[in-house]
Amino acid sequence: MEQWFLNKYSPNTILKIKIKKLLFQEKSPYQTIEVYDSHDFGRLLVLDGIVNVSDKDEFVYHEMMTHVPLFTHPHPEKVLVIGGGDGGIVREIAKHPSVNQIDLVEIDSKVITTAQQFLPRSAIGFKESRLQVFNEDGAAFVERRPDCYDLIIIDAPDPIGPATSLYQKHFYMQCFNALKDDGLLTTHAETPTFTKELKIMQSIYSNFSAVFPLVQLFTASIPSYSIGIWCFVFCSKKFHPLNDFRESSAMESSMHNQYYNAAIHKASFALPTFLNTAIHPSHKVP
Amino acid sequence: MEQWFLNKYSPNTILKIKIKKLLFQEKSPYQTIEVYDSHDFGRLLVLDGIVNVSDKDEFVYHEMMTHVPLFTHPHPEKVLVIGGGDGGIVREIAKHPSVNQIDLVEIDSKVITTAQQFLPRSAIGFKESRLQVFNEDGAAFVERRPDCYDLIIIDAPDPIGPATSLYQKHFYMQCFNALKDDGLLTTHAETPTFTKELKIMQSIYSNFSAVFPLVQLFTASIPSYSIGIWCFVFCSKKFHPLNDFRESSAMESSMHNQYYNAAIHKASFALPTFLNTAIHPSHKVP
Repeated sequence: MEQWFLNKYSPNTILKIKIKKLLFQEKSPYQTIEVYDSHDFGRLLVLDGIVNVSDKDEFVYHEMMTHVPLFTHPHPEKVLVIGGGDGGIVREIAKHPSVNQIDLVEIDSKVITTAQQFLPRSAIGFKESRLQVFNEDGAAFVERRPDCYDLIIIDAPDPIGPATSLYQKHFYMQCFNALKDDGLLTTHAETPTFTKELKIMQSIYSNFSAVFPLVQLFTASIPSYSIGIWCFVFCSKKFHPLNDFRESSAMESSMHNQYYNAAIHKASFALPTFLNTAIHPSHKVP
Repeated sequence: MEQWFLNKYSPNTILKIKIKKLLFQEKSPYQTIEVYDSHDFGRLLVLDGIVNVSDKDEFVYHEMMTHVPLFTHPHPEKVLVIGGGDGGIVREIAKHPSVNQIDLVEIDSKVITTAQQFLPRSAIGFKESRLQVFNEDGAAFVERRPDCYDLIIIDAPDPIGPATSLYQKHFYMQCFNALKDDGLLTTHAETPTFTKELKIMQSIYSNFSAVFPLVQLFTASIPSYSIGIWCFVFCSKKFHPLNDFRESSAMESSMHNQYYNAAIHKASFALPTFLNTAIHPSHKVP
């Protein structure tokens, strides 16, 4: 009998992905963790029913979340990853030789062991010698580390279940405090294609804008996450993602990225008019 | 009973779109034409089972196919649309005051009357006074018009059914001849997300490259067409889409576009590394 994983974008739009096999399923204290093997997307890590990582396009997400801020900051040394239990973000950070400390706070250690067993391409990040892993709540962790990091990457699941506290303005304030005076922060921010996700994006954008002096959306295409544009948020105390972009470093590096390059870095900050209007309603053309 | 339209990206990945009602269905001499009303995408024009126009995102496709070349050419006057029977491309061309002649060659007059009945937002293009419509084969039409146009837009369905002849190198040669010495051509070129479509894209790109001195891909996000990046081809005898881009004209115009703007024009030519590699395999990083 055919097995399909259903990616429910909305009650009226559903992506069906044909599955070869369910490889793993377990309820951790925090969430239901599943790993499927699929025909078109390779392995899928699914948390509480939502695709978290797919072999086919995890590189898009992990490269954009990481290299956009790390090629903006002039000399990034200390990086904090909140979530990121599959290891893909750490794999990308590790490509930057200036970084000498990577802290990763993943509340659910079962995500890490699952990735180590089934997603070796991402979990290779856990072999990184500059990495220290903390299995605790990310919100509590950042509170104890003021003025500490050059970059924080929030790689949390969608704002349901264990990640809910990671979408509050209070938490964004704590992240602001945990950053040095010229620190940066990136996270993901859903798609504008469907109304529910657009509202989440608007809320994330406006909450960050209340905390950081510079907040900009940037975009990529990540088929396994959604149809349409996938958005990220770039937050900064000082550096500008285009004016301070270390373009020649990005062009000269031989990182063997599959998605990110210098042209994509700059292009990713160009937003279609409807998306500009959605996040800046006051600029709306009459 | 629930009705769903199935958008089959591949045998193993299917987008299900919930339908309110089938509004129209007819077999013309060329193809099966259907119009559905859907919850998330509004009305869908479907030709031989493939989504051709959706209310939700038709503006992305029509704006990008049109404004990218028309803001590159310094003074576009004569434009030919091959296909385009829904009228959306003409609606966008008509926003450019320098254009004084729009010829549209749609082999299937039933597509035009269907659009006029069910897709008023696109079909408004047919009220344009500079427009002349020809119901004949596009390939035969261009052969009789050497050295005639500033821009040709090929807005044909996918390379099956009546549009097959519009994907041959011979036809591209005829288009080249129908353009003036500094003419431009745009068309769409599928998505790299799935293997079959990627091969079609590579073939379109390489066939145009054998005919035009300058060929570049540009991209947008069109949810109803596919998950992942949607590609277009920009072909030129002389003008460069970035170096000759009339940026200030694009910024000053008050066209009320929903997707296209000057930043998007430039950004759309930045390709992710994997896509660059797919169309220029010889540049592949070892």
